[in-house]
Order: sequence, then structure tokens, then C-alpha cells
Amino acid sequence: MTGTTPKKTTPTHVSKKEFEELFRAVCNWGRWGNDDERGTLNYIQPEHIRRGAGLVRSGRSVSMAVPINQVAGPDNPRPATHYMVQGFDIHSDRGEPQFSADYFASEFHGDCHTHLDALCHIFWRGKMYNGFDADQVTSHGANRCAIDLLRGGIVGRGVLLDIPKLRGVRWLEDDDGILPSDLDAAEKEHGVRVEEGDILLVRNGRALKRRVKGPWNVREGCAGLEASCLGWLYERRVAALGGDGHNDLAPSPYKLSMAPIHLGAIAMIGIHLIDNADLEELAETCKRAGRYHFMFTMAPLVLQRGTASPVNPLAIF
Amino acid sequence: MTGTTPKKTTPTHVSKKEFEELFRAVCNWGRWGNDDERGTLNYIQPEHIRRGAGLVRSGRSVSMAVPINQVAGPDNPRPATHYMVQGFDIHSDRGEPQFSADYFASEFHGDCHTHLDALCHIFWRGKMYNGFDADQVTSHGANRCAIDLLRGGIVGRGVLLDIPKLRGVRWLEDDDGILPSDLDAAEKEHGVRVEEGDILLVRNGRALKRRVKGPWNVREGCAGLEASCLGWLYERRVAALGGDGHNDLAPSPYKLSMAPIHLGAIAMIGIHLIDNADLEELAETCKRAGRYHFMFTMAPLVLQRGTASPVNPLAIF
Amino acid sequence: MTGTTPKKTTPTHVSKKEFEELFRAVCNWGRWGNDDERGTLNYIQPEHIRRGAGLVRSGRSVSMAVPINQVAGPDNPRPATHYMVQGFDIHSDRGEPQFSADYFASEFHGDCHTHLDALCHIFWRGKMYNGFDADQVTSHGANRCAIDLLRGGIVGRGVLLDIPKLRGVRWLEDDDGILPSDLDAAEKEHGVRVEEGDILLVRNGRALKRRVKGPWNVREGCAGLEASCLGWLYERRVAALGGDGHNDLAPSPYKLSMAPIHLGAIAMIGIHLIDNADLEELAETCKRAGRYHFMFTMAPLVLQRGTASPVNPLAIF
Amino acid sequence: MTGTTPKKTTPTHVSKKEFEELFRAVCNWGRWGNDDERGTLNYIQPEHIRRGAGLVRSGRSVSMAVPINQVAGPDNPRPATHYMVQGFDIHSDRGEPQFSADYFASEFHGDCHTHLDALCHIFWRGKMYNGFDADQVTSHGANRCAIDLLRGGIVGRGVLLDIPKLRGVRWLEDDDGILPSDLDAAEKEHGVRVEEGDILLVRNGRALKRRVKGPWNVREGCAGLEASCLGWLYERRVAALGGDGHNDLAPSPYKLSMAPIHLGAIAMIGIHLIDNADLEELAETCKRAGRYHFMFTMAPLVLQRGTASPVNPLAIF
Repeated sequence: MTGTTPKKTTPTHVSKKEFEELFRAVCNWGRWGNDDERGTLNYIQPEHIRRGAGLVRSGRSVSMAVPINQVAGPDNPRPATHYMVQGFDIHSDRGEPQFSADYFASEFHGDCHTHLDALCHIFWRGKMYNGFDADQVTSHGANRCAIDLLRGGIVGRGVLLDIPKLRGVRWLEDDDGILPSDLDAAEKEHGVRVEEGDILLVRNGRALKRRVKGPWNVREGCAGLEASCLGWLYERRVAALGGDGHNDLAPSPYKLSMAPIHLGAIAMIGIHLIDNADLEELAETCKRAGRYHFMFTMAPLVLQRGTASPVNPLAIF
Repeated sequence: MTGTTPKKTTPTHVSKKEFEELFRAVCNWGRWGNDDERGTLNYIQPEHIRRGAGLVRSGRSVSMAVPINQVAGPDNPRPATHYMVQGFDIHSDRGEPQFSADYFASEFHGDCHTHLDALCHIFWRGKMYNGFDADQVTSHGANRCAIDLLRGGIVGRGVLLDIPKLRGVRWLEDDDGILPSDLDAAEKEHGVRVEEGDILLVRNGRALKRRVKGPWNVREGCAGLEASCLGWLYERRVAALGGDGHNDLAPSPYKLSMAPIHLGAIAMIGIHLIDNADLEELAETCKRAGRYHFMFTMAPLVLQRGTASPVNPLAIF
Repeated sequence: MTGTTPKKTTPTHVSKKEFEELFRAVCNWGRWGNDDERGTLNYIQPEHIRRGAGLVRSGRSVSMAVPINQVAGPDNPRPATHYMVQGFDIHSDRGEPQFSADYFASEFHGDCHTHLDALCHIFWRGKMYNGFDADQVTSHGANRCAIDLLRGGIVGRGVLLDIPKLRGVRWLEDDDGILPSDLDAAEKEHGVRVEEGDILLVRNGRALKRRVKGPWNVREGCAGLEASCLGWLYERRVAALGGDGHNDLAPSPYKLSMAPIHLGAIAMIGIHLIDNADLEELAETCKRAGRYHFMFTMAPLVLQRGTASPVNPLAIF
Repeated sequence: MTGTTPKKTTPTHVSKKEFEELFRAVCNWGRWGNDDERGTLNYIQPEHIRRGAGLVRSGRSVSMAVPINQVAGPDNPRPATHYMVQGFDIHSDRGEPQFSADYFASEFHGDCHTHLDALCHIFWRGKMYNGFDADQVTSHGANRCAIDLLRGGIVGRGVLLDIPKLRGVRWLEDDDGILPSDLDAAEKEHGVRVEEGDILLVRNGRALKRRVKGPWNVREGCAGLEASCLGWLYERRVAALGGDGHNDLAPSPYKLSMAPIHLGAIAMIGIHLIDNADLEELAETCKRAGRYHFMFTMAPLVLQRGTASPVNPLAIF
């Protein structure tokens, strides 16, 4: 499939100064004005949406969402709840129609559910993206950079980089870090190039491994992007990033941050992140279709002042 | 705007036999096989998705979702809840990053939140769509026709019929029923025709009226489709139907059903319904664009055995 | 019933200095040591519990709790939720037994549900009772003065002061403030004296008025204790205080505090408060029994780091 | 401590007929009239409450509740949730007071939380206690035998039978069944006799074992009462029963019922059950006090149509 040698991440011993430089180098604060709360979504222009729509050929849509999970487990310590409000046993007073209804509750951040992080989710030294104060997030939610700003959804061109395919494995091992050179190599292997305004999905195969091996505590180990990818994401001007893990390699090899991709992408570059996607069907479809770009659409719930939303992103071929 | 005279619905005095005939005439049970759980979504073929994508020209996406509403009111007796799991006050043990997270809960059927009804939501004499037994829905959810069957979303061509525009009013009055002749007239006025596999949105202006006048109990009065529209929906082979009210005229002029559109569309024809959309921005956009058809995408949460999902449907122009 | 003239509270125009003096005069910070988190519950000694038990004669227990309320209304904007986890429709795999189960959720502070406020509920200038910092309460709950410290319950002698009975009315009007002289007069009328370590219940008749007149927004008006009662509560060394309203007169006649009884009793004196009790059956029972003291027991749920618990306090005669 | 030999339960091979006879022999249906919904609580007469109060001597109250548990685990697959509604970060519009508040949700049946089962919790062949139809329990809760009938609480004399003490062990092993002869022997060892109207607590030591060994799946193994104890409970006329496990020995040695104590005690005898208590402090207190009877009080939340309530039962010495 590829000549790329699977790599283990070398724990990176960087000074505090070097580490901070990593973040400062990708800082987009002020780039779109001092009031901007959309970050790199600003890269998506009408032409990107048209370009995405132009990729619809076979008329097939593919979900990237895992099912809402009510079973507690190592990657789901606070399972979602789903109760029936009423069921078939209730007769309405007029006899017809009878109906069923339900109730759903979830703490959708976490290690299990496909969700979209808002830019208010992460703080760097008391500041969120664009320098807004962290105390804009209170018990009542976020006054800045909340998820409801994305009411109109994220629509455009999606690109999948399938790292296990690149490496000729079914899934990445838990200590496999993904480096910028992997992203470059995957582009080459797939015949695609990530461009300004694209929604980038990076597969590590977690969803497949989870189906085969069962759930595990991804905080203790999960393949993901190495912090050195931040520069790549910044320079390529990706509009949004998603992955089947937490996007971050876990545990972090850096003492200074447990999640440098979250920190750098969300708080510095201004990239909204999709965590815990299921990219298996997408990878199969790309492989069969022989192309790794497609129309992408995703519409978060309009949760005012929310820091995230559960989502079901679609790739349309 | 139009010469159409606003109409009040004439309370329809029909015999039980005539009323039942209304439903039997639109029954799609068995049409796509005895195991079918997708109903009229079967009308959406790859060509419909391609056709939808072909309508993306200006590269603008428009949301049809109302914000999740935490304030109790006459149309929101069981408000959603949204709590912070953690906020800026929590320092992670490694110092960086700090993050915020939240919890969301909702009984998303009801009169307020934009949601997509699954085909298991409504029963006709102990049966749901395609004749599945109502007791397939238990305290643990629906074994048949649940919302997670729509994991791949609904994508295709959307068409808006803007009835207040047709009648030259800002919004319909609460006792205004929408008749098949209104749908025909709106098509003519808009220069569009609802065709097989389309996702149809019918505006009555409720969201605008709500913003201007405040919320009211829509169970006691809300404009909507008259039961006689069932035949129209059936014949035109719409794939899905949405409205800014409950789609049904309320209260029902029929003693035999409090919601004949829900009953007929969901249980008999097999049409998934979007209730409580906000079609104001869509109507403005259609008017400005001079066209009432557009690409439509919507992806419900993958809520296993659920009877509905909160959704944020998008129109892409 | 009594010669006491019903009184309207005179809006009190006090200087900021005088108002602050009110709180400083009743400050118990440090009284039971710098680590104390129990406040006036320290007054309850074994002899008080024995004394309470000694009042059990007729062997009848009376609840002071309102039912958990799932219906939104002016005093219940965030109604509790109660869903069935399973019902009679579910057959266990062994056939027997079948069982039913449920789920319950509540934001139990507020204007409707009978609950016990922990001492971490109220802050005075960034401090809670005994001078603990307010930032001991975070998104994850309270590290100090939380409700689970009362795991062993509150048991002792309860005393009811029935102010409507004193004034010869069914219930107090919404702008009726209760003054120290009312408490003294009620003691005299009832033939009881509030002593150190007693649990004091003060009735204003709200639960009866609510049943007769329907719910109203008690934030806009509800009878309660005037701030001048703080000195009385402090001097009499009551161990806990409960009422059928919010204990506080609402709205507050003071610009400097919307709830001076909550502020003074909880944060300064260290008194746990029971809000929104139903004291009707208790008042009837006291009247019939001809005595206004009884055994009192209440056991909050052991909600770690919680700021309150829903409770069902009992009076045992 | 005692000469009693620890026993393993002999798996009981009984015919279906013999097994059913076990239940029929303890059936109290109709005993207190055809409308009775209180079951053996009818045994508690005023004299029992007075007798309970008469046992208060040292003035100490002891909780039997485990803390509400938010951590998923083998005995807590659906952990409770607790979120802050507001915290110290929120300033009221008048500046003072600031306050904190929270939200709590729980599915309180299950293997972890101390709760009181209502008589509507268990069905025997489509019937609950006293022959009420199981379909009186719907998606909207129980119309018969619901927990809110116990608004006035359960107050009386409590008796602890400490089986590990009897057997000279710290806790019972998971396959240890408790037989009627154990109950008799414990009475003798403790110098107490269970009488009509008593609230009986039977300790197996689970809470201590859990603290020492960690949580385990109690469905797969937990000490408890053998089904043959049903006759004993019936004859002794206990008013309520509680235990630190599920009261039932698990797994059930009977093919015909996974929980014969639940089935027999609740549905046939009409005994309300307290599951998952923590009886450690109670056992210590009884041992030190040299007596195994005490005043008992417990007041469930007034959850209308509920099948149970979380509780914090108190023993007062």
C-alpha cells in the first residue's frame, strides 16, 4: 500500500520556551478583527461551498457519527441517558393518534461521543481564542465563541487523510503519533491536497479497533496528531479538523500540555474540532471511489452559550 | 403580492367512514416491502441528491433550527436543561489547558424545539408505518422505525412553499388551515413544482409571529395543513415534510384525530416530519434569490431506538 | 383568634452602614472554631434529641414536603423531570419478576420544591459561613459546607410559629413582613418558647394560598421574615429554620440585598434553611393537639459537594 | 463471637409448584381491604411509633445511606449526575447575595444507591401487591402503590440483625445465603426479637467489603436472604425490610425467579424494601450500645407515581 514506515513518536523534550513558541507561531488572534469568534471558519468562502457541492456525483451520503452510547465503559464514564416520555401504553383522550416520545441527556464532551468543540472550550493562560477572557465562560455558559454561532453549519469541501491506509495497517497503535510528514505522505498517497478552507478529517482507525477489541481508556493511550502538526494546520489554513480519536495523541509527550492540539488548534489557530468521529465507512467509501475529497456538511444544535454540540457530520459523494 | 384570498378552514364534518377512507387512500404499507422502515425516504435516489447539490450557487447555508430553549413557556412546558460540567474555574492538574464543558438534556418532542419525528412516533390502531406493531415501542425505545435508521441523514432538493407570502400576510392566523389548493397556488406563485423525492417545507410564519407577539400555546391554535393535504403529499411523493408549526392545523377540526397530518403522513404515507422549524431566514433568502428550491441537508443524532432527534436542517443556496 | 393587627412592612430606609451592621451583629464566624462547617447545628446536643423524642405521644408523623412538581409554572420555571426506566411492558428474560423503575431529575433550589440549603449556598462578599472563600465552590460543587456533612440528618425539637393563626387570617398577603414582635406574639399565643437548639418553622400560609389561588411568582411577592428577625434568630440560638415561602420577605425592601434572611441566616449566623415547605397539615395538627412543639426529623440525600438537597421533613407527635 | 458455622446456600431444587406455593403461602392480598396500597406498613400503629421514640436515649442519629455516586462502576452502570446551576462566578444584579445552586439526576433503582422500593416496583404474573394490574404502571408512572403514598414517612422501631457478627466474619461471602435459622440465631445472639410493626435491617457487610475490596457486580454475586425467609418475614409481621445488598441472594438459586425476596416481600406480603443501605455505622453503634433496636425514621421524596425514592434512613439511639 505504501512504503512509509510506521513510526513511534519520540517523546519530545522541549523547553518551556520552545513549547510556547510553538503556540505563538500559530496564533491567529486579531487576524479577522478583535471581535471575531469564528476563527478559521472565516476561510470558508462561498466558492468553497460551491466547490464542495460540485463534488457530489454518486449521490451517496456517509455519516461520521458514532451512536449515542448509554453503556458506561472505559471511554464512556458518564453515559448518555435516554428515557421514554411515553410509549405505546398511553392512549390519548381522543383515541387517535397514539404516539411515543422520548428524553435524551448527554455530557457530550468526553471520550465517546462525536461532538464539535466550540472555540470557548479551551483556554490558554486564562484566555480563549482571539484573546477573550476565560471568565466569559461562567456557570451559565459562554458569552463568547459559543457553539450557537455555528447555527448555519459547516459546509464545504472535506478531505480525508487515512493514516492507517498510508501505513498499511488496520489501525494505529495507541502510542502512534501522526507527524506533519505523515500528512504530506497521505496527501501524496491519496492524490489529494489540503487547501485553504477545507474541512480535514484524519483517520487513526480507532472506531474499527474499538469494534474489534472493545472500548479502552483513550486518555491512557490513543493515536493522534503530534504537536508539530500545528504549524501544518496553520499554514494549510484548514477551516475545521476532525478525527476518530481526540485529534491529540494521548497521553501527551509534553509536560506542559495534556492536549497540545486542542490547545493550539482551538485557542491559538481558531480551529473548531470534531472529536470521536467514526471514519470507517468514510474511509471505505473514499477507497472505493478512488478519491479522498467530498462535500462535507454538519449542523450543530443551536445550544446557546454551549461549549460544544453532539453532531452527525456527513460526507456526500 | 398575490390575488389569493386568505381562507379560514371550514370545520369539516365528515363521517368516521369518510375520515378513515382519507387514511386508507394514502397508505404506503408494503410499497417498499414488508420490512421497510424508511418510508418515503425511498423516493430519494442518487439523482435527487445530485440534483440538490446542483442547486448550490451562491454558497450560502441557512439554518432552519430554533435555539434550544431553556425557558418554560406556553409552548415549552418542559424546557431543555443545559448545565456546565466545568468552567473556567477549574484548573487541570498540569496547569494547561484549562477547559470548559457542558451537559444538555431535552424532551425534544413537543411544541418548541426543531426536531425530526421518526416513523415510530405515531400509531394508527396499534400499528406504526408499514404495519409494525405498536408494542415494538417499549420503555426501552423503538425496535422498529427508530431515528437511528437515518444515520446517513436526509440530503436532496428542498422546496419551500411560503403561504403567508402567497396570501400577502406576515403570518397565518391561528385558525388558518392550509389546503391543497394553497399548495398548488404557492407553487405557481413561486415558480416551483414539488416533485418526487423532494423535501417539502411549508411556512406559516409562526417563528416570526412568535418573535413579534411572544410564545403562545400552539396546541390551542396554530396554522397548519388541513387533512385534505394528505392526498397531495401522497401523490406528489414528497420524501420528507417540515413546517414551522406542528405541520398539523391545531386544534384539529376532526373529532377522530387531534393530528391527522401526523397520523396520515407518518403512519400511513411513511413521511418523516420536521416540527417547529424556523423558516424565516429561509423565506427571506428564497425571496431574495428568486427561487424556492435549494440543496437540503439534515443529519439526526444517532439515538438508538429513539423516536425523534433534535435537528438543525440546512438549506444551501 | 387574636388581637394582633396585621401589619404591612414599612420599607426600611437604612444606610449601607446600618445594613452591614445588621449582619455583623449576628456573625458566628469562629464561634465553633475556624474549621467548623455545621454552624448552629452545633446547638443540637444529645439532650435536644432526647427532648424531641420525648414529645412523641400520639404516634403520628406529619410531612412538611410539597410533591415534586413536574409542571412548569410561575414558581416552577425549571420543573423536575420523572421518566420511567422501564414499565410493565418489559419482560425479564426469566419471566418473573417483572419490574418497573424510574429516573428523576431536579434543580431543587428555586421557588417550588421543599429543600434544605447547605451553608455553601450563600456568599457574603466572596465568603461563605465561617469565612470560607467562595471559590471553594466550583463547577464541581462545594469543597466546604456542602450538604453531605448533614448525612446524619437533623433531629430534635421542632417548633411551629403560625403567623396567619396569630393574625386571624388564612394566609399572609404577599407584602406582609414578619417582625420579631410577631414571633414573640406567636410564642405567647401558642404557649411555646423557641429555645437553643430548636428547629423553628414559621408559617405564612403560602401552601394553602397556592392550593386555593394557584401558583404565583413568589419572587415578585411573598410574605416572609423581615431582616430585623436576624437578631431574634441569633439570640434565640435556633438550630435550623424553615418556612413555606423562601423564609425571606420578597421582594426585599432593602436595596443592598435581595434576600437578607438567606444572607444573614446562612452566611453569618450559620443556620441551614428549609425553603418551600408545606406547613398546612402541621398547623392543623398543632392546633388540634394544642401544642406547637414536636419531634422533628429530616435526612438530606448524601449529595457530595451539593449545595442543597430535596427533603421531606417530618414532625412526629 | 459465636459458635454458628458459616453456611453456604444449598441450591434449592424445587418444583414450579413448590415454588409457587412459597409465594401463595405469604400472600397478604385483601388482608387490609381491596383498596389497600400500604401493605405491611399497616402494622405500624401509633404505639409502635411511641415505642420507637422511647428508644432514644443517647441522642445520636446514624445514617444508613451511601453517598450519591457519580462514578460509573460494576455496581453503578448508570451513575447519578450532579451539575452546578450556578457557582461563585455569578453575580446577582444587586451585587448581594451571591449564591450557588445545583442540579441532580439519578436512576435510583439499581445496585448502588440507597433507595426505598414502592409496592408498584414488582409484578407477579401481571399483578402487583393486592392484585392491582401491572398496567396501572405506564410510561407516566404508577397509578397504584406509588412511593408518594409514603409522604408521611416510615417511623417506628428499627431492629438490626448483624449476620457477619453472628458468624464471626467481617462480611458474608457473595454466595452466602441467609436462612430463617440465621435470623433466629442473630436475634438470640443480639438479645432482641423482631416483632409486629418493626422495621428490620439485615446486614451482610457489603458496604464494608466494598470499601475494602472495591465495587463489584452484585448481580453476579451478593449475599442476601434465601427465599425461605419469606415465611419468617410474613409470620413476624415486619413492617419494612432493608439490607446493604439487594436483600435477595444473587444470583438466585431458583430458575423461576431472579429475585424471590423482591417478588415475595413486595408483591405478595406487601413489604417496602430498602436496597443498598450502608449498615456499617449502625452495626458499630449497636455493638457499642449493646442493643440492636432503636428509633427508625425515613421520609421518601414525594415523587408522584414514582416506583421508588432515594432515601437516607436514620437510626436514632
